[in-house]
Amino acid sequence: MAYFPAIPQIAYEGAKSKSSLAFHFYDPDEVILGKPMRDHLRFAMSYWHTMCAEGADMFGVGTLRKNYGQSDPVASALAKADAAFELMQKLRLDFYCFHDRDIAPEAETLAETNARLDTVADRLEELQQATGIRPLWGTANLFGHPRYQNGAASSCSPEVFAFAAAQVKKAIELTVRLGGGGYVFWGGREGYETLLNTNYALEQENIARLFTLARDYARSIGFTGSFYIEPKPREPMKHQYDYDAATAIGFLRKYGLEGDFKLNIEANHATLAGHTFQHELRIAREEGFFGSIDANIGDPLLGWDTDQFPTNVYDSALAMWEVLEAGGFTLGGLNFDAKTRRPSNRFEDLFQAYIAGMDSFALGLRVAVKLRADGRLGEFVQQRYAGYQTGLGAQITGGKATLQSLEAWALAQGEVATTSGRQEYLEAVLNDVMFGG
Amino acid sequence: MAYFPAIPQIAYEGAKSKSSLAFHFYDPDEVILGKPMRDHLRFAMSYWHTMCAEGADMFGVGTLRKNYGQSDPVASALAKADAAFELMQKLRLDFYCFHDRDIAPEAETLAETNARLDTVADRLEELQQATGIRPLWGTANLFGHPRYQNGAASSCSPEVFAFAAAQVKKAIELTVRLGGGGYVFWGGREGYETLLNTNYALEQENIARLFTLARDYARSIGFTGSFYIEPKPREPMKHQYDYDAATAIGFLRKYGLEGDFKLNIEANHATLAGHTFQHELRIAREEGFFGSIDANIGDPLLGWDTDQFPTNVYDSALAMWEVLEAGGFTLGGLNFDAKTRRPSNRFEDLFQAYIAGMDSFALGLRVAVKLRADGRLGEFVQQRYAGYQTGLGAQITGGKATLQSLEAWALAQGEVATTSGRQEYLEAVLNDVMFGG
Amino acid sequence: MAYFPAIPQIAYEGAKSKSSLAFHFYDPDEVILGKPMRDHLRFAMSYWHTMCAEGADMFGVGTLRKNYGQSDPVASALAKADAAFELMQKLRLDFYCFHDRDIAPEAETLAETNARLDTVADRLEELQQATGIRPLWGTANLFGHPRYQNGAASSCSPEVFAFAAAQVKKAIELTVRLGGGGYVFWGGREGYETLLNTNYALEQENIARLFTLARDYARSIGFTGSFYIEPKPREPMKHQYDYDAATAIGFLRKYGLEGDFKLNIEANHATLAGHTFQHELRIAREEGFFGSIDANIGDPLLGWDTDQFPTNVYDSALAMWEVLEAGGFTLGGLNFDAKTRRPSNRFEDLFQAYIAGMDSFALGLRVAVKLRADGRLGEFVQQRYAGYQTGLGAQITGGKATLQSLEAWALAQGEVATTSGRQEYLEAVLNDVMFGG
Amino acid sequence: MAYFPAIPQIAYEGAKSKSSLAFHFYDPDEVILGKPMRDHLRFAMSYWHTMCAEGADMFGVGTLRKNYGQSDPVASALAKADAAFELMQKLRLDFYCFHDRDIAPEAETLAETNARLDTVADRLEELQQATGIRPLWGTANLFGHPRYQNGAASSCSPEVFAFAAAQVKKAIELTVRLGGGGYVFWGGREGYETLLNTNYALEQENIARLFTLARDYARSIGFTGSFYIEPKPREPMKHQYDYDAATAIGFLRKYGLEGDFKLNIEANHATLAGHTFQHELRIAREEGFFGSIDANIGDPLLGWDTDQFPTNVYDSALAMWEVLEAGGFTLGGLNFDAKTRRPSNRFEDLFQAYIAGMDSFALGLRVAVKLRADGRLGEFVQQRYAGYQTGLGAQITGGKATLQSLEAWALAQGEVATTSGRQEYLEAVLNDVMFGG
Repeated sequence: MAYFPAIPQIAYEGAKSKSSLAFHFYDPDEVILGKPMRDHLRFAMSYWHTMCAEGADMFGVGTLRKNYGQSDPVASALAKADAAFELMQKLRLDFYCFHDRDIAPEAETLAETNARLDTVADRLEELQQATGIRPLWGTANLFGHPRYQNGAASSCSPEVFAFAAAQVKKAIELTVRLGGGGYVFWGGREGYETLLNTNYALEQENIARLFTLARDYARSIGFTGSFYIEPKPREPMKHQYDYDAATAIGFLRKYGLEGDFKLNIEANHATLAGHTFQHELRIAREEGFFGSIDANIGDPLLGWDTDQFPTNVYDSALAMWEVLEAGGFTLGGLNFDAKTRRPSNRFEDLFQAYIAGMDSFALGLRVAVKLRADGRLGEFVQQRYAGYQTGLGAQITGGKATLQSLEAWALAQGEVATTSGRQEYLEAVLNDVMFGG
Repeated sequence: MAYFPAIPQIAYEGAKSKSSLAFHFYDPDEVILGKPMRDHLRFAMSYWHTMCAEGADMFGVGTLRKNYGQSDPVASALAKADAAFELMQKLRLDFYCFHDRDIAPEAETLAETNARLDTVADRLEELQQATGIRPLWGTANLFGHPRYQNGAASSCSPEVFAFAAAQVKKAIELTVRLGGGGYVFWGGREGYETLLNTNYALEQENIARLFTLARDYARSIGFTGSFYIEPKPREPMKHQYDYDAATAIGFLRKYGLEGDFKLNIEANHATLAGHTFQHELRIAREEGFFGSIDANIGDPLLGWDTDQFPTNVYDSALAMWEVLEAGGFTLGGLNFDAKTRRPSNRFEDLFQAYIAGMDSFALGLRVAVKLRADGRLGEFVQQRYAGYQTGLGAQITGGKATLQSLEAWALAQGEVATTSGRQEYLEAVLNDVMFGG
Repeated sequence: MAYFPAIPQIAYEGAKSKSSLAFHFYDPDEVILGKPMRDHLRFAMSYWHTMCAEGADMFGVGTLRKNYGQSDPVASALAKADAAFELMQKLRLDFYCFHDRDIAPEAETLAETNARLDTVADRLEELQQATGIRPLWGTANLFGHPRYQNGAASSCSPEVFAFAAAQVKKAIELTVRLGGGGYVFWGGREGYETLLNTNYALEQENIARLFTLARDYARSIGFTGSFYIEPKPREPMKHQYDYDAATAIGFLRKYGLEGDFKLNIEANHATLAGHTFQHELRIAREEGFFGSIDANIGDPLLGWDTDQFPTNVYDSALAMWEVLEAGGFTLGGLNFDAKTRRPSNRFEDLFQAYIAGMDSFALGLRVAVKLRADGRLGEFVQQRYAGYQTGLGAQITGGKATLQSLEAWALAQGEVATTSGRQEYLEAVLNDVMFGG
Repeated sequence: MAYFPAIPQIAYEGAKSKSSLAFHFYDPDEVILGKPMRDHLRFAMSYWHTMCAEGADMFGVGTLRKNYGQSDPVASALAKADAAFELMQKLRLDFYCFHDRDIAPEAETLAETNARLDTVADRLEELQQATGIRPLWGTANLFGHPRYQNGAASSCSPEVFAFAAAQVKKAIELTVRLGGGGYVFWGGREGYETLLNTNYALEQENIARLFTLARDYARSIGFTGSFYIEPKPREPMKHQYDYDAATAIGFLRKYGLEGDFKLNIEANHATLAGHTFQHELRIAREEGFFGSIDANIGDPLLGWDTDQFPTNVYDSALAMWEVLEAGGFTLGGLNFDAKTRRPSNRFEDLFQAYIAGMDSFALGLRVAVKLRADGRLGEFVQQRYAGYQTGLGAQITGGKATLQSLEAWALAQGEVATTSGRQEYLEAVLNDVMFGG
């Protein structure tokens, strides 16, 4: 443990602690509802932001170098792997998520790039065995290289499609080798810049083709995990096809992929699409596509992916409500797809950011559990729709009503009563549970 | 013709005319691509905005009374019908669109309300016979009455569902009687105010139930037209289920309604969902759900449905491009779901607003036709994807490629070339055609 | 006390209470930092939303009648006054805010309208004497009537300007008579719908003229309170001139009104302008224009004034931080410019909404006080800028540096260090204080 | 001319030309309203986007290398200068705009960096003499280097303030040496990431200090040009202090800088602040701060600075309307602060993008001139406010009215008439002029 010598092992110290390098709310081994917090939350490190992103933005270069003094690409990649595991161990993170190009940078040729990946994978495998940490999911970066400027699967060029396919193949193999439970598709370049130059239909079909090829290949080499689409509406493209959960679900059903694919919901992508984080989780859950989560927050006043570490406990509580309602994670988890703000230019900030995020979701879990125990929210919803259990309501849901029978009922009825939605009361209940001690 | 005595019959006077009560670009009988402009554009009057909306907004009462001196609800409704037909004739509008509650206001009981509807329908039928004008589509207002505060089909109350069903039944009967080519569902209250009180799954199923009941009943009484969903993301609700075209299409396919339902795309709803008007039309067209259009423009800087008369020719040209690519309207058309600005407080403004809108779409049609004749846009797209017609591309689209074969190709290939998307050039071509004379 | 017989006096029951008709966090008489909570918070009822708004929105009529069975306008107004004071007493609200047209609806002539106002004012005066409740501020409704469709002070018509002036005169007189501490200008129609028809310069000058006339008249009749501008960016107009705090402050300084006018900051207006609530309060405070607050929350995903009862404790805590930093309210206070959601269609919901809002701001106050006691936030900022206290920094702030001297320093210096902004840590501190017990 | 050998001199070929490397609407020497189009439009090249930006975005590296085969920083900078002048000559651009770091990249020390600047400035001076091209304005890049992560003038560190001051000094000297007519401040890092760590008051004062020092120094070395603030609301920071025109004007007046500073309005920044491009120009013009323009368009559906080449003729026409109303540019001009889309990965695209932008503003100028000749818009506004010229209106604007006199008038008057704003008609007039031939 040499990369972050000033950072101690992060321990749970409780709510009264003033230490900035300790958990105040996250106690990994505390058992809640029959299992340890760590198994409820299944926290994962994002390799790209945490190990690779150095604070650059569109108007400025990086503010924190992360090559640990290494200039050779492979040596640097190996150093990052070692540093990543030190960081994960110190933060008690059990999982990580990676793109192929995060763990090893692209070389001149595809063959050489793949060889680099194998070299780093050897190191990762050792580190995994030593620590028990493993991938939550892997993926291929099909957006950074210029060849993907017009898309990967949705590129106008079949040659680019082929390169994407080759990269997906290798990334799946890596994911399987490292024991990853999931494989993600994030379609950052699968969309369009302008409809003036775009063949939407062909692009859609080609995306489905790549997903199908990937599914078939992965299953053929023994991948039993889950595929995930990660919806996002825009940025970097003007429009991305996986706009939001509903759009992605419609796509998966159209192309018969619903048996293998679920969704990886990101909070910041939700708000960019005009939805709350909870909305996207609710849709995914109730449509049967709840998979995994990219945990961050966006800034509702900013129109791009700020990918901030999540610290808003309303958001984390309502997210964990949905997770608990879904029965908890199976193969998925909470991946911190989050980066420190550009002026947070020290490694200490990175640790404190993770602590802030993990404590926030720990608080969110605690609140969600209390909300369920409190019962008022759940019971209100139960009661609100109770009319559909009997009588007229049961006729409707049971398929026994027709427009004619319902008109006859209505003509005989006279006006009907309406019940209050009680939003303000329900929000007060939420505050009660959050702040009521 | 007594309601708008100061307004003459609106005639086409050509681009040099300075008359504010003449068409400058819309010549209904001019034949373009083998059919008259009126058949390309199929303009419709929106009964609600045009005959009923008086300029009120959330902070102020109406500025233009539209009851023509009548205080009795039925007398007022009949006067509106007469005025509507005078207006449509003067503006050479061949179609109109209506909610049940536009043509006759709700009475104390459902039976009495239905009787009012029949009375007004008698008058409308006479007026239709005298003029040849007929409904583009009809619909039921399932959002204005307090009983629908929690939704109609998606209400938590089965009694409300029954009232909605009864209302839909009558509205379908009216549409059939008046010869309407379509029936629309606009789900302004089918959504939620807060997830804290919402059973999403049941609400979705119940919406599908009402659609299915409506479809079955309509077909049973001889309706051969098209059903339309009109996507909209929000307002009046926090969230509406028919968020955008992709979401509505996913819903229709899930519930097996794609054979009977298409989409009615509204420009302003598109932008509220984060999409361009053209995007929504493109999705609808390429997914096989192109139906009809609500023509207006929103204000991209305002976050609600401003429903302005359409005057932006970029928008109308790209919309008409999509209409022409779809092969033109069949049962659908261009309904002006648009209202005059609140300070436009004279009937003369209403006529001038229609002229502005119709001229804009006439310009849009002319531009779209010229764009197709020019050929540069179409050919660029054709060429851009040509690689998928032969060789590697044809293997991919023909289902002959696998991840393994594509990886083998890529490993052997070395880097691939990328082609320019040429967005700036394509936008210049559009300006050339629009402004190049 | 006859208007809300089912509602008891609302009492503080503490955080463990499950009663929906009790305060859980707001204890009016609890002394914090030397004064009772009620004096810190100075809660006010908004007459318009609370007594007049019935749940209508742009797509539906009201869901809760508030005329208490009275159809005569004056009788109804008097009943509302009685009901208002019952509500305020039960909710322990010490203040109210009103437009002239809230307390008495407009009659056929201005003289008659003014007479109505006097009649209701007599009743209000009695009720005030009986209860000790009084206006936080008054204002004139210069936006609802059709005559103001083009603006009031900024109208293109001097006749409309005159009517606005007359209405302001009466509203100031009423405010003085009833002992109001402030007088507000909300410029909902002072802006434009389109620049195509707008003389910006004249409209700006005329607004300043009305403000100046109002100030001069009010001072002449003994008004010693504060005038407030309430910034808002848009809705109902395309653009309003009082876009945000910075814009309003610039206007007040330009026209020499900064001695008499401060700002009334509304949370929802802040977010519509692209700012946080705290931002607008910070600008107002540090520029010397902190006055009063309209407390509500908007929905960051919705583009209009949702005016929801405030329940987000992050917002209320950071707002109360600014209030404490400003030294607390003097004449201003927290006016609940908030309305129940349309489906909250019972008076009970209205009481529960107030409770939710008051408890949220009580929590906000408690958190802000704890944050100050905790000290970490304040000290961090102090330290961060400490460089400006001595040496080079003191030369800069003391006006002793020039470009030449600073260049000489920089050339001699070599690179400088940068310090972390520590945003993630500071957000964790906020959560610590909020949730750390 | 060796850098773009495939690109010919771009000539005006008229509206019927199909050449993609010719102007179709911009005829530089055509005299309109008494002066050549080039003098109306004063087009400038943005050095940063045009010579330095290579197509990178937050999710991908560049797609078009612009170092012309040079790896040495100074050699590369000199090659760029030569290429820039070839490009400007071929495109008939008379001006360019630059940051210090665009023309020469930063070296290890400030002294060395300044030496590089002098070297490149020698070359630029030669090129200027050979071509007559000169800077529209210069500026310093105070946002890209990590030292400015917390701001430049608004940094929490006086040492950073000193570096910024040194850089501004040198950039002013360069601007003066090269004959630039303006000097710009763009405060991309002058704002905050979070209020939790920010001393707003000190930061504001320090910005004013730097502006004052810069003004004083520039005047002392003979700079007679104009200073410009370029408003922008956000990105890269959460909030920038120069949010919009109104905010910047308020700041300049507060600190007594209005005699030397005007505004440089950017279209894309306008829309990010919630305003139209025309709005910002109107405010600047009518408040006396009209200076220069950064011409581009944003995408109203995207929440960041897309900086697209301007091709929307509505925008350019209304912008040129404001420019003509302001009496035309004096020292300012139209700087294309625009970049090609990432997939436009050829130099040919860059030329075509400039042609598209220049033709759009040429069209905008032509439309604006026709609108003035047409007269309908101008006369409507004149008439609309005519009431303020005489009688009651003149009393108001002449300071002769009081609240008492106006009330007396209103009480005697009875209701007043309101006039229509005629927005739809005015928009139709705009289309008439644009499309009416």
